[in-house]
Amino acid sequence: MRIICSIQGTKRVCRTAQKKGMSIGFVPTMGALHEGHMSLIRASVKENDFTVLSIFVNPIQFGKGEDFNKYPRTLEKDAKAAKKNGVDIIFCPDMRSMYPDGYRTYVEVGSLQDNLCGVSRPGHFKGVVTVVAKLFEIVRPDRAYFGRKDAQQAAIIKKMAEDLNMDVRIRTMPTVREKNGLALSSRNTYLSYEEKKEALVLYRSLKEAKRLYHTGETNARRIISGMKKIIGSAASAKIDYVKIADPRTMKDVRNLKGGELAAVCVYIGKTRLIDNIILEK
Amino acid sequence: MRIICSIQGTKRVCRTAQKKGMSIGFVPTMGALHEGHMSLIRASVKENDFTVLSIFVNPIQFGKGEDFNKYPRTLEKDAKAAKKNGVDIIFCPDMRSMYPDGYRTYVEVGSLQDNLCGVSRPGHFKGVVTVVAKLFEIVRPDRAYFGRKDAQQAAIIKKMAEDLNMDVRIRTMPTVREKNGLALSSRNTYLSYEEKKEALVLYRSLKEAKRLYHTGETNARRIISGMKKIIGSAASAKIDYVKIADPRTMKDVRNLKGGELAAVCVYIGKTRLIDNIILEK
Repeated sequence: MRIICSIQGTKRVCRTAQKKGMSIGFVPTMGALHEGHMSLIRASVKENDFTVLSIFVNPIQFGKGEDFNKYPRTLEKDAKAAKKNGVDIIFCPDMRSMYPDGYRTYVEVGSLQDNLCGVSRPGHFKGVVTVVAKLFEIVRPDRAYFGRKDAQQAAIIKKMAEDLNMDVRIRTMPTVREKNGLALSSRNTYLSYEEKKEALVLYRSLKEAKRLYHTGETNARRIISGMKKIIGSAASAKIDYVKIADPRTMKDVRNLKGGELAAVCVYIGKTRLIDNIILEK
Repeated sequence: MRIICSIQGTKRVCRTAQKKGMSIGFVPTMGALHEGHMSLIRASVKENDFTVLSIFVNPIQFGKGEDFNKYPRTLEKDAKAAKKNGVDIIFCPDMRSMYPDGYRTYVEVGSLQDNLCGVSRPGHFKGVVTVVAKLFEIVRPDRAYFGRKDAQQAAIIKKMAEDLNMDVRIRTMPTVREKNGLALSSRNTYLSYEEKKEALVLYRSLKEAKRLYHTGETNARRIISGMKKIIGSAASAKIDYVKIADPRTMKDVRNLKGGELAAVCVYIGKTRLIDNIILEK
């Protein structure tokens, strides 16, 4: 496994692999890798001849007052785990090479960003889509892997790739959870012992949505109300949003027909956590 | 030479050429080809193993009330000229395949679009940049060719390709003119015989800028005033803008240091014409 910081160097290695007829799998991350990331890496290694992992804490997807500065950076540990799981190269550019002085090009996917996290984090998805477009140009992957925990992100990137006629296929992989149900996230490291216990209300609220749906409830308002009750039981929990949305358009749904996304975003203390499941029979 | 309308078909042909180690030159146009386009095609044929010409009247770069509907479509004539000049494939997609229902991804280059044509045609460059980004994904050219008559367009596309880390090299070729100085443009076909004579004030104003600059004038305001006087001599001319700008940032320049862009946009009757030159010693 090689670690490459330069854009040109990464392009060179990727183009060479491609010329040899190898398929390229790509896992873009911000590092602080956990088992969720590992599941993406393993899928990529399995489905492609060559796997590129990028580690880049992308400044333009963080808003003012968000956690860009304190976001965990654990490159050495990440590299070990990546190597063990079969990554061929880690691409870890610095900020100045990704956004040199005078940088001014942005990619945006309209309307999909107008609900859920797009509301509480204005500009966030513009930053995500832009960096992913750049990374796709550098790596030119055949397949790129994203986690379903960030369902809105995955849907937006899929739409971007489709709209811009990119060759890449977007693969969205299941959320990996701790045994107690907590969805893995690099931001879980911010949680105290007590907060980690309270954070379980996210998944519990999703399970409640599932239970209600399976008892025949199709009214989104009533399901959401049941979910909010559970989240409210945690003292340090502050709801950002609790939504039932169409998983393609990300628009709110009033009456469930099956296949909808139940999505929650909750602050546990100062830590913003998200989770979601698909409601289907 | 082949004419291909499907995106997938064009991708297939381009990827096959690339796999054989051929370099791809790309000339994106809206058709109604004239000698200016031919100079781009000839440069591409000379510098690359395989030349793709696209013909697509891109709806999203036209504003309301602009000439999208009456823009000249002359595919048969274009195909003949393209073939004669060595084009390998013409890619002519239809609107529905480029912008299917639910299309919603746009690429924008900030600030470069805030002057000159970007002011009088809001949204125009967003449409141009988006379609070129799409075409670049489909063709994956090594080099792409643009005319210097659309200097702002070329600068914006160059910036987009650079910012998004695209592999393509942008080549900007000299403006081709009629013997009397009129810059070739597909829109010249809108001009009556009388208007065509009046349209000569565009180039004459640029020559006046050059003359003034060569006599030692470095004050942009005074050069612009001299240019406006010449344009004013044509009865049917209505100035959209007359500017001296930095050719990279497209920002207005007050005092010339050499290498600045003198750019004019003038309505002759109902026809909007642009032209420019670089002022240098």
